[in-house]
Parts: sequence; C-alpha cells; structure tokens
Amino acid sequence: MKKTPEYFMKEALKEAVKGLKEGGIPIGAVLVKNGKIISRGHNRRIQKKSAVLHAEMDCLENAGRLTSKEYSKCEIYSTLSPCSMCSGAIELYKIPKVYIGENRNFKGPEKRLKKYAKVINLKMPQCQKLMSDFIKKNPKLWNEDIGL
Amino acid sequence: MKKTPEYFMKEALKEAVKGLKEGGIPIGAVLVKNGKIISRGHNRRIQKKSAVLHAEMDCLENAGRLTSKEYSKCEIYSTLSPCSMCSGAIELYKIPKVYIGENRNFKGPEKRLKKYAKVINLKMPQCQKLMSDFIKKNPKLWNEDIGL
Repeated sequence: MKKTPEYFMKEALKEAVKGLKEGGIPIGAVLVKNGKIISRGHNRRIQKKSAVLHAEMDCLENAGRLTSKEYSKCEIYSTLSPCSMCSGAIELYKIPKVYIGENRNFKGPEKRLKKYAKVINLKMPQCQKLMSDFIKKNPKLWNEDIGL
Repeated sequence: MKKTPEYFMKEALKEAVKGLKEGGIPIGAVLVKNGKIISRGHNRRIQKKSAVLHAEMDCLENAGRLTSKEYSKCEIYSTLSPCSMCSGAIELYKIPKVYIGENRNFKGPEKRLKKYAKVINLKMPQCQKLMSDFIKKNPKLWNEDIGL
C-alpha cells in the first residue's frame, strides 16, 4: 500500500521527538526516494555543538553522497518550514518536493524555495505543538538556532 | 599591523590546498572576527563522505555555536563563490561581509546574497587556478559537489 505524506511526516516527527529526548531542539526530517525512507535526521545543535546540523541538513548528511539523479527522485519531509540554509541545500541538490509539518512557529523563505521545489504544508497540529511548547520553554536557544 | 583581505584569503587558500592533499575538493574558508581568524575549514565531501560540508559550512561548523552578536562581527572568506546552501547559511547567521577568492569557476547566487551581506570578490589568480586545474581533472566529482 502506498504510504501517505502524513505517514512520512509522522516519521519526521519521531525524529523530532528523538531529538527532544536527547536534550535537543525538536525538529526532524526524513528523505524519501521512490516511496521509501532512505535517510533520517534531526536538529543536533545541542547534541553536537553544531551550527549547521539543522534537521534537514542532518538528514541530507546521513544520506551520504547521492547523485543528482538520485536527488531528483527524492522528497524531503521536515516538521518545520526550512530556513534559508536548509532551503539553499534543497535548491543546490534540486530536491523537487518539500513537505513541511507547519510554518506557524517559523517560516523560512518559502516563496523563494517554491521557485525550485514544490512545497506542501501539511499543517500538522502535532508538529506545531511540539515546537511551540519547546520555544516557550527555550526562547534563547530557539533564537540562536534561527540566527537571532 | 592590520591584516589585509588578501592575507586572510591566502589563509583560506591554505585550507583549500590542505583539502587537495587529503584527496578532497580544493575549496577553503576562514571565519574572521575582529581581525582574527576564529575558525578554518575546507570542503570535506570526499574525506567525510559529506553532502553538507562545503568549505564555508565546515568552517562555520568548526566555529561551534556562536551568538548572533558574535556573527555580526565576523567576515567569512571563501576561495570560491558560495553556492545556495552556503549563501543560505551566511544569510541565516547574518554574517555581514563575505570575501570570495574568485567566481569564474563557479558563481553562486551572489545577487541574492548581496541583499544580506557585503560581497567582495578579490579575484585571486591562485584561487582560480587551483580550482580550474581540479575541475579539469575531476569534472564528475565537481558536478556532484554543485548538484549537477
């Protein structure tokens, strides 16, 4: 049976929850190729003292080196709207489809990203709540993650 | 004595040469804060099987977690014009000044980047030659690095 976008976003959400349990920022991502998850990742700012491992970047990094042909068959799922860095990575590798869990807690440059990829906002309340609860408790850390 | 932009670009070039000696793609970067190099990096696609560690990203990663106030005092030097991913990272962290070694072998979205940062092309022949020699010998690898 063909899996739904909601199914894959829930897998990204599992990554976000995993990040939270590690003491990190709860944003998760999965990379899907031909209907199969080929990579998973979550924000590792805290865990790895990382300035670059946002969820989408961690997911792309965990996928390893792919060819442009492989990327062209991929969709990326992120529980939160991608920032300029992650959007830039999606643009670089020409990933044609981007599913986002929500964009109410943060909205990246979606208008720009839409020039390069199809962007679908699933508006999932679970993604939104996980993030808004975290931001309320950790405003300073959250600001750091988005360069504020 | 105040160090010149050319001095810092030569340090970025040292990183590029270091990468080449490791068998990697010869692009280097340094992050300068208040006239001092606080981080260095080079492309690690080959060395770490990395899809995200372009020179600028490696350099930002090696700098660790900085505050927005710290980034606001930084300049980043890269031997090659930053791609969309690296430009997006510079935009995210609001690094106000970007020095590039050259943009003849590759030109990232500089026009867009200029909305967020001052971009200065030093047009250094050493940077250009190192890269063009590499691309001639490794066209397939180079294409992979820029998502082609």
